[in-house]
Amino acid sequence: MANSLLVHINTPTDLRKLSPEQLPQLATELREFIIDIVSVKEGHLGASLGVVELTIALHYVFNTPDDLLVWDVGHQAYGHKILTERKDKFDTNRQWGGISGFPKRSESVFDTFGVGHSSTSISAALGMALASKLQGDTQKSHIAVIGDASIASGMAFEGLNHAGVTDANLLVILNDNAIGIDPSVGALKNYLTEVKEGRNPRQNNMIKSLNFDYTGPIDGHDLPTLLKELQRLKNVAGPKFLHIITTKGKGLKQAEENQVKYHAPGKFDKKTGELLPKSEENLPPKYQDVFGLTLVELAQQNEKIIGITPAMPSGSSMKFMMEAFPERAFDVGIAEQHAVTLAAGMATQGMTVYCNIYSTFLQRAYDQVIHDVALQNLPVIFCLDRAGLVGEDGATHHGVFDIAYLNCIPNLIVFAPLNEHELRNILYTAQLGLPHPIAIRYPRGRSESTNWQLPFKRIEIGKATQLKEGKKVAILSTGTIGNNVTQALTEVEHANLFSHYHFGFVKPLDEDTLHNIIKKYDTIITIEDGTVKGGFGSTITAFATKNNYTGKLRVLGIPDAFVQHGTVAQLQQYCGIDVKSLKEIFSTY
Amino acid sequence: MANSLLVHINTPTDLRKLSPEQLPQLATELREFIIDIVSVKEGHLGASLGVVELTIALHYVFNTPDDLLVWDVGHQAYGHKILTERKDKFDTNRQWGGISGFPKRSESVFDTFGVGHSSTSISAALGMALASKLQGDTQKSHIAVIGDASIASGMAFEGLNHAGVTDANLLVILNDNAIGIDPSVGALKNYLTEVKEGRNPRQNNMIKSLNFDYTGPIDGHDLPTLLKELQRLKNVAGPKFLHIITTKGKGLKQAEENQVKYHAPGKFDKKTGELLPKSEENLPPKYQDVFGLTLVELAQQNEKIIGITPAMPSGSSMKFMMEAFPERAFDVGIAEQHAVTLAAGMATQGMTVYCNIYSTFLQRAYDQVIHDVALQNLPVIFCLDRAGLVGEDGATHHGVFDIAYLNCIPNLIVFAPLNEHELRNILYTAQLGLPHPIAIRYPRGRSESTNWQLPFKRIEIGKATQLKEGKKVAILSTGTIGNNVTQALTEVEHANLFSHYHFGFVKPLDEDTLHNIIKKYDTIITIEDGTVKGGFGSTITAFATKNNYTGKLRVLGIPDAFVQHGTVAQLQQYCGIDVKSLKEIFSTY
Repeated sequence: MANSLLVHINTPTDLRKLSPEQLPQLATELREFIIDIVSVKEGHLGASLGVVELTIALHYVFNTPDDLLVWDVGHQAYGHKILTERKDKFDTNRQWGGISGFPKRSESVFDTFGVGHSSTSISAALGMALASKLQGDTQKSHIAVIGDASIASGMAFEGLNHAGVTDANLLVILNDNAIGIDPSVGALKNYLTEVKEGRNPRQNNMIKSLNFDYTGPIDGHDLPTLLKELQRLKNVAGPKFLHIITTKGKGLKQAEENQVKYHAPGKFDKKTGELLPKSEENLPPKYQDVFGLTLVELAQQNEKIIGITPAMPSGSSMKFMMEAFPERAFDVGIAEQHAVTLAAGMATQGMTVYCNIYSTFLQRAYDQVIHDVALQNLPVIFCLDRAGLVGEDGATHHGVFDIAYLNCIPNLIVFAPLNEHELRNILYTAQLGLPHPIAIRYPRGRSESTNWQLPFKRIEIGKATQLKEGKKVAILSTGTIGNNVTQALTEVEHANLFSHYHFGFVKPLDEDTLHNIIKKYDTIITIEDGTVKGGFGSTITAFATKNNYTGKLRVLGIPDAFVQHGTVAQLQQYCGIDVKSLKEIFSTY
Repeated sequence: MANSLLVHINTPTDLRKLSPEQLPQLATELREFIIDIVSVKEGHLGASLGVVELTIALHYVFNTPDDLLVWDVGHQAYGHKILTERKDKFDTNRQWGGISGFPKRSESVFDTFGVGHSSTSISAALGMALASKLQGDTQKSHIAVIGDASIASGMAFEGLNHAGVTDANLLVILNDNAIGIDPSVGALKNYLTEVKEGRNPRQNNMIKSLNFDYTGPIDGHDLPTLLKELQRLKNVAGPKFLHIITTKGKGLKQAEENQVKYHAPGKFDKKTGELLPKSEENLPPKYQDVFGLTLVELAQQNEKIIGITPAMPSGSSMKFMMEAFPERAFDVGIAEQHAVTLAAGMATQGMTVYCNIYSTFLQRAYDQVIHDVALQNLPVIFCLDRAGLVGEDGATHHGVFDIAYLNCIPNLIVFAPLNEHELRNILYTAQLGLPHPIAIRYPRGRSESTNWQLPFKRIEIGKATQLKEGKKVAILSTGTIGNNVTQALTEVEHANLFSHYHFGFVKPLDEDTLHNIIKKYDTIITIEDGTVKGGFGSTITAFATKNNYTGKLRVLGIPDAFVQHGTVAQLQQYCGIDVKSLKEIFSTY
């Protein structure tokens, strides 16, 4: 079909000039536009395809941007971006300098609230609605669009619980497709499925019990029904809840059939939908798979081992443990707080719990790490996936704060492996029994070598290792960014000046080695892929100062600013911790 | 009545020797015992009085400690402590070296999970139950006792949502007394009230919808009914939910009638229940009241001002704003995550939001501070009550991590006032319009002077102030702990050696002043009531090192260990930041 309608639409004002009868065609064109670009430029696909009709209907019925529309998470907002002045830039999606893959306030007035992490939309939209009311505006609509995986998170419940006792002009739209990134889980999901299938004899009282005006479920791909229902709800006062049923990946057969893979499928053939082959054959495994496969290996030997993931079985590769030991691996849904305290409860009964949470999402369970795990000194093993710079997901998703926010917690061991061998060995060491909880942080993406499955070796807790001997400058790195140092040192002219130490343990510090370092070198450089504020370098600085170090000390890492999106290489360059930048720095000595 | 039964009971085994008919008398004795001691030694009262029958029934029916009992929050666990080997130590409750005011694993095998912060019990008990199942134990019971204020928090919902799809042997007991510390709020609370009063035509489907076997509501003070019901539930498989109705403060008339005041009433006459008069007349106001009353003063002038508290209207003194401007002040319940993002949503619409959260509870909303507020640079004003050492509440409640966990967040201003004047002035300054969000941290307890209500003065953002001029040593303090420095300097012999600078702003740092300091003084001492790891001193150290400071630098603050309970004075002494310790340190220069 020709792009005959969409070509004329740059804003919702343009959209509203169409007749309702033209909207199904626009939906088809919008889907094709998304597929055309994402098939080549990559990005999130399935979620946006699923809400094409909803997106059109919302901007058609409501007077955006005056009416305030908040997308939860934001994976699904590509159609929204295209209809709101960003059609021409959509091919820069997720690229350095391009538009963000998520709604972002600084990007557009139509992006009323920046998202990325889930389950914030109800609270944000309620805040907007209460503010409008206080400012005397009773006409403005405030809409939160939230998926069934996100609404099961505690924060969303808190928002509903508050909204239900207000008279805020709030519309919550539950986009129920029974899947987040992986299939949704939990009792609420089962309940919603019963409602959808008409099997629930109690009707949808749960939402009504929270004092919402409930409608649904309706077919979220049926534009006339959607338009009628939204038009009606526009004139209903107080908190309202519309339950719509959609299919993730709608309109692309393969994406409908394989929803997990087509969440963010990489490049694919836009006609056939087939994924383009990747030449992955001789690449090292992802750190995620090193984690996931090693865990299974360990669990075969140690029956106390349990795995927990909050809604990331595929992303974290916990799926391997779930397949191998379904009764010992738990996907608890988007519930990081619960995941951590569940792990603590299991640990009190002698289980060896690997609680895998993306670094950025552990921010959601910070109190539980302190109050439920560290304070009680329970030996939970936190596996912090996607630590450091994550690339295209950008500012909302970088795992750069973890060293700083974990370093101040007593009792906690903090470890960042240099490579896949160290990751394997620390996973092995942890289940031998540690006297403390441990956080193991490792990045998104490929590890260093294909020959990764070496026999396990126990790692000595709190011990740094010297990777290279030199005369004048000691370089102290933590985690896989140390490989940039190694690379830079092979390229720099006076490499014999530089010693390189790998501090896997940010905590406890190897004080013996540090005492030797401050005695021996007149310059120390620290490097990490975490914030310089309160991070590894800050700890080394504190140690050096306390011990009257008189040499120079330089701290490299993530500056005190939010880092945007781009490739990891681009972002490392921006932060001055890529190989080239390091080489330049080293060359000045 | 004579203490004729309780005197023979030290453990649940002793308890189980009684006949069911003797238990009501034991309840009376246990209540008297609690009242006797708390009336003199202070502590939490109302919650424990409300669950006397439940406590007895649980230990009578279940085989504790083999059956695992988790109390949510733990304010209500005094009866539990008394019946589980701590009757003789109960008069040391909350004192330095004495037993903790909360269940604590290291204190007793009957305290299966340490608590203090709310809403953790379901997750913890579920973790225990799943562990038992994996270990082949199908008989063991796992019980979470949670109040209606705590169950409305998102984390509790996450626990229920997961439990409902397991076959774990979990019993959740909802102790519904319609109050937390302040009266419960929210749509769930209204729903539960309808259920209790038989007004809900839908019955209690909400819990059933989450796949729990629901019983209730029953009278939680009726021992025969409780025993019968618990006995029955002991033999029901899978997740179960018992809804009991109790009265907070039960058995002491004043405590029943004034539940907020008798949550933790201080000393009172155990016969009449009357509070003992405190000689508060010429004392400075609490920082809490300085906050609360100043906010009202500002809100009278600035109609954009909004106040938010998550369930602490009395504790934070947000109650004054709620009384003066009920439509502009929100108690959102125990929902810190929601509170922060709600504030962010309001801020997008131009409101000036004072979001007051205890420092220790902001840990619950860490991600929201980063992702929803700081990343979007929304000028929310966080008022972090009970920052620093809080005293008798102990390790779970100290607000000592905040400087470290906030300092690494870009865009955020972090300020700690020296006294009530600075607190007032920063509250005033914040609503004049700041380009960034701000966190204002101030302690629990009395401020410095009775003459606190001076005219407002604007505070210059990022500016330190010199409090005293001296020759050799620069003392840099942040927050009210600076008053200890001032006091110590009046008592130390060579006071002329010491300059004293107050860094209200931990972030942004006053770099001009710091450059002058590192030029002028050959020794710097920093002092704070936060963790030395990643805190204020760490920031000063980083600055000094970066700028090639060659003098000595010493960092004082909270060591890298969890600090237990006691008076604030005792805890400051333990950390070496009380006046006496400072004087001794200063005397060595």
